[in-house]
Amino acid sequence: MKIGKSTVPHTAICTSDEHTIVVRGHNLCEDLIGHLSFADYFFLLLTGKQPDAACSAVLNATLVAIAEHGLVPSVQASRMTYAAAPDALQGAVAAGILGCGSVILGASETAGKLFADVAARVDAGASLDDAATAVITELKAARQPYPGYGHPLHKARDPRVDRLIAVATEAGADLRYVEIAQAIERAIPAVTGKDLRMNVSSAIPAVLMGVGFPVRSLRGVPILARTAGLIAHLAEEAETPAGFALSYQATRELQYDGDVPDGFGAHA
Amino acid sequence: MKIGKSTVPHTAICTSDEHTIVVRGHNLCEDLIGHLSFADYFFLLLTGKQPDAACSAVLNATLVAIAEHGLVPSVQASRMTYAAAPDALQGAVAAGILGCGSVILGASETAGKLFADVAARVDAGASLDDAATAVITELKAARQPYPGYGHPLHKARDPRVDRLIAVATEAGADLRYVEIAQAIERAIPAVTGKDLRMNVSSAIPAVLMGVGFPVRSLRGVPILARTAGLIAHLAEEAETPAGFALSYQATRELQYDGDVPDGFGAHA
Amino acid sequence: MKIGKSTVPHTAICTSDEHTIVVRGHNLCEDLIGHLSFADYFFLLLTGKQPDAACSAVLNATLVAIAEHGLVPSVQASRMTYAAAPDALQGAVAAGILGCGSVILGASETAGKLFADVAARVDAGASLDDAATAVITELKAARQPYPGYGHPLHKARDPRVDRLIAVATEAGADLRYVEIAQAIERAIPAVTGKDLRMNVSSAIPAVLMGVGFPVRSLRGVPILARTAGLIAHLAEEAETPAGFALSYQATRELQYDGDVPDGFGAHA
Amino acid sequence: MKIGKSTVPHTAICTSDEHTIVVRGHNLCEDLIGHLSFADYFFLLLTGKQPDAACSAVLNATLVAIAEHGLVPSVQASRMTYAAAPDALQGAVAAGILGCGSVILGASETAGKLFADVAARVDAGASLDDAATAVITELKAARQPYPGYGHPLHKARDPRVDRLIAVATEAGADLRYVEIAQAIERAIPAVTGKDLRMNVSSAIPAVLMGVGFPVRSLRGVPILARTAGLIAHLAEEAETPAGFALSYQATRELQYDGDVPDGFGAHA
Repeated sequence: MKIGKSTVPHTAICTSDEHTIVVRGHNLCEDLIGHLSFADYFFLLLTGKQPDAACSAVLNATLVAIAEHGLVPSVQASRMTYAAAPDALQGAVAAGILGCGSVILGASETAGKLFADVAARVDAGASLDDAATAVITELKAARQPYPGYGHPLHKARDPRVDRLIAVATEAGADLRYVEIAQAIERAIPAVTGKDLRMNVSSAIPAVLMGVGFPVRSLRGVPILARTAGLIAHLAEEAETPAGFALSYQATRELQYDGDVPDGFGAHA
Repeated sequence: MKIGKSTVPHTAICTSDEHTIVVRGHNLCEDLIGHLSFADYFFLLLTGKQPDAACSAVLNATLVAIAEHGLVPSVQASRMTYAAAPDALQGAVAAGILGCGSVILGASETAGKLFADVAARVDAGASLDDAATAVITELKAARQPYPGYGHPLHKARDPRVDRLIAVATEAGADLRYVEIAQAIERAIPAVTGKDLRMNVSSAIPAVLMGVGFPVRSLRGVPILARTAGLIAHLAEEAETPAGFALSYQATRELQYDGDVPDGFGAHA
Repeated sequence: MKIGKSTVPHTAICTSDEHTIVVRGHNLCEDLIGHLSFADYFFLLLTGKQPDAACSAVLNATLVAIAEHGLVPSVQASRMTYAAAPDALQGAVAAGILGCGSVILGASETAGKLFADVAARVDAGASLDDAATAVITELKAARQPYPGYGHPLHKARDPRVDRLIAVATEAGADLRYVEIAQAIERAIPAVTGKDLRMNVSSAIPAVLMGVGFPVRSLRGVPILARTAGLIAHLAEEAETPAGFALSYQATRELQYDGDVPDGFGAHA
Repeated sequence: MKIGKSTVPHTAICTSDEHTIVVRGHNLCEDLIGHLSFADYFFLLLTGKQPDAACSAVLNATLVAIAEHGLVPSVQASRMTYAAAPDALQGAVAAGILGCGSVILGASETAGKLFADVAARVDAGASLDDAATAVITELKAARQPYPGYGHPLHKARDPRVDRLIAVATEAGADLRYVEIAQAIERAIPAVTGKDLRMNVSSAIPAVLMGVGFPVRSLRGVPILARTAGLIAHLAEEAETPAGFALSYQATRELQYDGDVPDGFGAHA
């Protein structure tokens, strides 16, 4: 069935013949395998360009920063899935990735779009602090969350924030979006009365956008990073099962609020 | 509900308090972010150990080798899913990962187990070629496929195979499992009469097992690598849609073999 | 880690002890198994209420209407996934469900919200046609699609639309939302100049909302229905493989728009 | 890329033109919508045949029996996923379905294959009890589980078992596979010394195989049924969030067994 306008698919990522695999214009075997790190290859796949040293340093740092934070909900979902379906590692990884959504790990992308909005206002003549105040005021009026600010555990400040900024600074990355992120951090208490500090989901776009990482693929960074963490958790699950124990603990205080038929529970 | 014996979950991967995130015994912010590449961090997450230089070189090479090979079925599935559900990048990535199964990308793991089997037979006193011949003879008798040998496109030899072996050799990696993989390649024509050459799914375990990558997590390498490729394809899909065009082309020659009611098609 | 305000989970769907499973206040074994059809049970699970005869007739009709429409993109994605990973039926079903998104099958829910919006305007005093014209005018101004109107194949009118309306009429269902859907169908050409007819994704909410099906779960109807279709396709795939043939056909006219290294293709 | 032998896809499930959708030889709109229940349509999609009354009764009963059993691990995984990614209902359903694997809900299929094995031995001349004893003896020797026998909560006997058998008996279904399932239940204590009673995962194939449901699609029954339950749980999650509370509870007694750096926890 024809859906949409085009019926001929196009791609510019990869082609191959019997002897050669071409990726983004390069011979995969001769020019890339053994010459490029995996994170740099991710950037090349995504953008068609090889990253410079600052970009490589910052991208690796963000992937390391976000790959793992213990038994968060998506890791629990993944380990429970693996406990129930141990033959399909890929299914358990997929279940974990499905939790990289708007509430939890998707904030990187939403924050990045916010920073791009501030940058556009500054380019149009606004001062940095005015632009930051304006976007936060608009989010408040729309009763939207402030993506990338505040953290349930790290209330003082997510320790990954300063570290990522330090890596970007040392690497000589463009710090424009870091400054935008910090301007928003200053604007939030003034506008909202809440002291919500930058968390890792604002630090990631803040440092990545300065090295040319595309805003539209920001959600890909936590997805790729968490995939590494999930594979490690599933290796641990295979040796030291925790999935069913997690699900047992999860419901120990579960309260059932519905009706019961006459006599239910009388046997106990 | 209690399922299984343990009700208290354990983990040795990550813990944290308000100030510090600990991963595999290291302070994430002080010791890892900015000090370690993403691929090395994947190895640390998985094994608890930092990779040596040979391991790092080989692991990066395998991840680069397997991340992308054009519009293979799992990439098509992912792009069609994204075309239908563009709000959920994570869902399209998950759909692509779900195709890393026993037939396509899971062969790395199956081949790795085969190599471990040959290694055990050699350790028990068999010659390398006798052990290789024995496992292939057993697979033939059981009408099982030869995992990691033969390729639909690269009939002469998958060009990634020699390159991965060269990287492992240059890096000074232990080549024991490369030799096992090559012994199996020699045994296959003798036992089966088929000239099936090593493909990337045997080369990956061959080089990785020599640098201490755990056999039980071999399927994680194509899963992690393909996640990077999928994110790139979904960025392209957002800009240059191909998902619906692929599905249109896919069914142009579709043959319907069932019955039709009287008069069906008469309008045309 | 504590995320959100509540730390004690509640549910009103199901509880059980060693002897009895209670669902929505009923004894599952004594009162439901053998007494209720699967579609009626779905309604009970969702709402806590048993459906009346009209609701049962309409709900079954919508599930039958949307379960299957041939090798649409999500079915292709599912069959390709199963071809690659035949050990994990659940993974291939999941891949197919992941394509029930905002563009393809999610339109039922979006259309339902649109109908609720028109109903609220009528309740507030507007005439039906004015309310319909107003919401279409707003969608046009916002450059939003008209969810549930127009179809790539069934241009005259999706044949399922009249049939679903006939079933609802015969069953004695409340037709209020059918009339709203038809008013929107009349408003679209006047406002937009396009003759977009009701398709199955507007007919489903139009008939279901009249029998008390909750708007917030409308996307659940195509998801549940398509799961039945996917399971049938995967049974066919196991006997008559088509997944890899679909992916082969899909790329026969693929155009690669990127660069190639010198000499690429010279072997051919 | 050509994978496998066939390059032209075939299907016998559905075809359509602009006016008519044909499913399994029937006109969907004229002959099926409004004439067939959803469960009966599932059987038609799967087998190409309309179910008789006994088949319809038994299939509906099994779908009702297995759709819901409270906050089991796959439901928890689904609700946690939805809490993190509330924009993608389909993703949360998919995460729940991914837990229908070999350990938890896949046992229906494994048990069905076991019953087919016993039936084949009886057809070849063995007595029912000898055939049952033989297959259990073989499973014990292979250290395999006994699929469909034993339950973590319903130790006396899963209450759904007798009810499903009663429905099949009342409906006049062929009880051959029920008798096989009961013969296995008798054989298990004699062979293994364990008193493992039939649970719902053996009762489902026992009653379904007698009404012509295909063994190869048995796993589809819990997958379809649980999809209905998952959609209900996600509707509840949208109104009464429990996903994050479940994940909080799950880790309250979590034990970290790894190393920590000097000074970790000193702040607290």
